[in-house]
Amino acid sequence: MKVRVCIIGGGPSGLLLSQLLYLKGIDTVVLEKYSREHVLARIRAGVLEHGFAELMREAQCGERMDREGEIHKGFEIAHDGVLSHVDLHKHSGGNSVLVYGQTELTRDLYEARDRHGGKVVHNAEDVTPHGLTSDKPFVTYRLNGEIVRVDCDYIVGADGFHGISRKSIPKDVLREYEKVYPFGWLGVLSRTKPVSPELIYVNHERGFALCSMRSQVLSRYYIQVPLADKVEDWSDDAFWAELKRRLPEEVAGRLITGASIEKSIAPLRSYVAEPMSYGRLFLAGDAAHIVPPTGARGLNSAASDIYYLYHGLLAHYEHGDDSGLTGYSAKALARIWKAQRFSWWMTMMLHRFPDRLEYEDRLQQTELEYLFSSETAQRLLAENYVGLPF
Amino acid sequence: MKVRVCIIGGGPSGLLLSQLLYLKGIDTVVLEKYSREHVLARIRAGVLEHGFAELMREAQCGERMDREGEIHKGFEIAHDGVLSHVDLHKHSGGNSVLVYGQTELTRDLYEARDRHGGKVVHNAEDVTPHGLTSDKPFVTYRLNGEIVRVDCDYIVGADGFHGISRKSIPKDVLREYEKVYPFGWLGVLSRTKPVSPELIYVNHERGFALCSMRSQVLSRYYIQVPLADKVEDWSDDAFWAELKRRLPEEVAGRLITGASIEKSIAPLRSYVAEPMSYGRLFLAGDAAHIVPPTGARGLNSAASDIYYLYHGLLAHYEHGDDSGLTGYSAKALARIWKAQRFSWWMTMMLHRFPDRLEYEDRLQQTELEYLFSSETAQRLLAENYVGLPF
Repeated sequence: MKVRVCIIGGGPSGLLLSQLLYLKGIDTVVLEKYSREHVLARIRAGVLEHGFAELMREAQCGERMDREGEIHKGFEIAHDGVLSHVDLHKHSGGNSVLVYGQTELTRDLYEARDRHGGKVVHNAEDVTPHGLTSDKPFVTYRLNGEIVRVDCDYIVGADGFHGISRKSIPKDVLREYEKVYPFGWLGVLSRTKPVSPELIYVNHERGFALCSMRSQVLSRYYIQVPLADKVEDWSDDAFWAELKRRLPEEVAGRLITGASIEKSIAPLRSYVAEPMSYGRLFLAGDAAHIVPPTGARGLNSAASDIYYLYHGLLAHYEHGDDSGLTGYSAKALARIWKAQRFSWWMTMMLHRFPDRLEYEDRLQQTELEYLFSSETAQRLLAENYVGLPF
Repeated sequence: MKVRVCIIGGGPSGLLLSQLLYLKGIDTVVLEKYSREHVLARIRAGVLEHGFAELMREAQCGERMDREGEIHKGFEIAHDGVLSHVDLHKHSGGNSVLVYGQTELTRDLYEARDRHGGKVVHNAEDVTPHGLTSDKPFVTYRLNGEIVRVDCDYIVGADGFHGISRKSIPKDVLREYEKVYPFGWLGVLSRTKPVSPELIYVNHERGFALCSMRSQVLSRYYIQVPLADKVEDWSDDAFWAELKRRLPEEVAGRLITGASIEKSIAPLRSYVAEPMSYGRLFLAGDAAHIVPPTGARGLNSAASDIYYLYHGLLAHYEHGDDSGLTGYSAKALARIWKAQRFSWWMTMMLHRFPDRLEYEDRLQQTELEYLFSSETAQRLLAENYVGLPF
C-alpha cells in the first residue's frame, strides 16, 4: 500500500487528521491495533474547547456535536462547602466549552471516514515504523497473519502513551518529563440525570470530587482515592456515599444515584516527551504527552497537535513549504507545556496531598480564596479552560 | 506610665501606628529593645506599594518619601538571557510602586515622633506583656536597671519574628505554618549607580539574581546561594563576577561595581502564625508572618496589618465600635495569606531548586513563557505587585 501519510492510531486524533487531510485531497491510512468496538468502549474526556470544536466542523464532522453537545458557559468550584461560579463566557470574552463525549466524537469521525471511503485498518498487529530518518519511510503491520507494508511520505504517531511510535525515537534523542501524583480518580458512569447543568469541581478535606456528565441522561462522577485502592473495594453504594460526603449539602441533597455502567480508577500524572518529531515521524496526543484530567486538557491538547500537523502537512503538499513540519515540535510543545501548566495548577489547587506541609495546604486554600476575590484570576482560569489560541 | 496603646517594637510598623494614632489623639508608647542607631543600621526592604505610601502620607510622614522616593511603573524579568518588561502601570490600571529604603522611611517616622513629642523608649530590656486576657493589660520592661510598668488598654506586638509578643500567646492557641526554601540570598549594598532604572529579577540556570536599588547612587544586588555558604566565602570580586554571569550580556556589560558597604546572607522562608490577636494583644508585621523577599511583600504586609489595626483602634476609641479589633486577626490574615501566595509564586518561578523534578523545572520555564504570552497573566502579577486592596 502507498499513501502520503500513514497514521498510527485510530483514536480521535488520528481519525480527525485523516479526515482533515482527506478533504484536502491528501490520502492517508489509519492503523488501529484494536477493533472499532474496543475503541468506542473507552470512556474518556467530554469537555471540548472552542478550537477543538472548530476543527471538528472544519472536518465536516461537527453536525451531531453541534446538535447534541451542550454549550457550557461556566462551571462551579465547591470549596469550604460553598459553591462558587466561574463564568467562562464573561471572563474569556464570550467563549465557552462544549460537553460532548469522546466516544460520540470518535463515532462521528469513524462514520465520516466510512462515508468517504477512508482507509481505517482495525486489529492491525505489530505495527512498526521504519526508515524514519530516510526520505522513504514505511510502516509494516500484520493483519490476519499476513505482513502488510505501507509506503508513505510521513508517519504520524497518534497511538497513545503505550503505542510504538514514541518508542521508535532513539533513547538518546528523546527526553521525558514526568510527575506522578500520589492519588487516583475513581470514576463512575451512570445512566442518571446529572446533579447540575454545569460541572462541579470539589475541593474537600476528604479529597477532590468532580460532578461531570456526558449528556442530560448520562452522568460521570469522580472521587480522589489513594493509589492503593482497587476498584473492587468500591461498591456502588460506597462510591455514592463517599461522593455525597464531599459535596456541598445542597448538591448532595439532589444527587440522583444509580447503578454504575462503568467504574474504574485512573492514576494521575503529567508527562511530556520531547521532541515531538523525529525525521519523518510526528507524534500527536497521548503518544507525546499526558495530563491529569483536572481541567480537561487531555483531548484538547491532542487537538492542538492535530491543528499544527494538519497545517504543516497542508503547507508542504500545497506549497512545498516545510516550515510547518520542521517547526512542528517546537510549536506544539510551546502550547502543550502551557496546557500542562494549567492541568498541574488545577490539580494542585483541588486535591488533597497526603505529604504536604501544612503551610502548603493553607496556600491551596488561599489560591481558592484569591481566585474568587480577583476578577483577573478568574479571567486567567477562563482563558486557559476555554483553550489558549492555537 | 499609663497610655492607651503600648506598642512593642520600634521598627516601621510600630512607629507608623504610633504616629497615626497620635494624630487622632490616641496616646501610645513605643518600646524598642535596641538603640535608634541599631534600628537605622538595618538594611531592609525598599519597594513600597501604593497603599503603604498612602498610609505614610496619612501619618504626615510622606514629604521626603514623595520628594526622594522613585516611582517605578514597571520592572524587568530576565529569562533565557532575554529581558522582558512587566508594565505595572498599564496592567494595574495606573498604579505603581515607590522605591524608598526602609531605613529612610524609619528615619522619617522617628523624626515625626520626635517632632510631636512621641514617647519612644530605646534600649528597653526584658519587655514583657502581662494580663493579655484581662481588661487591664500591662507591659513591664527594664531601663537602666529599673523596672518600668506601662498600663494600657491594648498591646501591639510589632517586635519582629524574634520578639516576645508572639511568644506570649499560649502554645495551644497559636498555630504556625512554615516553609523553608533550600537557599538564601547573598546581598550586597554598594555606593554605585544602579545598572538599570528599574528592578531586574533574573531567572538563570546558575540561580536567581536581583538588581535593585535604594536611590540613584545606592545599589542593592542579590544572588541566590546555597544555604551552606558563609558570607566570608564571598569576596566582593567573587560576588560581582557571579552576578555578571547571571545577568543578560547587555546588562552585565553596563554594570558598575564597587566596594560593598554591606554584605549579608539571608535564608528564605515563608511563615505565618495564627491567630494574630490574643485577648488584648495584637500582632503586626514580622511578629506574625515572614515572606521570602521575592516580590517585596515583607514591609508591605506589615503595612496592611497597621492599616487594619489603626482603623480598628480608631473605631473603638471614636465610636465604641469593637468590630474592627474583634475581626482584626481574620481580616489581616486574609490579606497576609494572599501576599504569602504571591511571594511563594514569585520565589518558585525565579529560583533554581536543587531537588526538583525535571518536569517541575520545565513547568517553571513554562510559567515564565506563559506570563509573557498572556496579558491576563501580566495583569495578575501587576495587581499583586502593586498591592491588593486593603
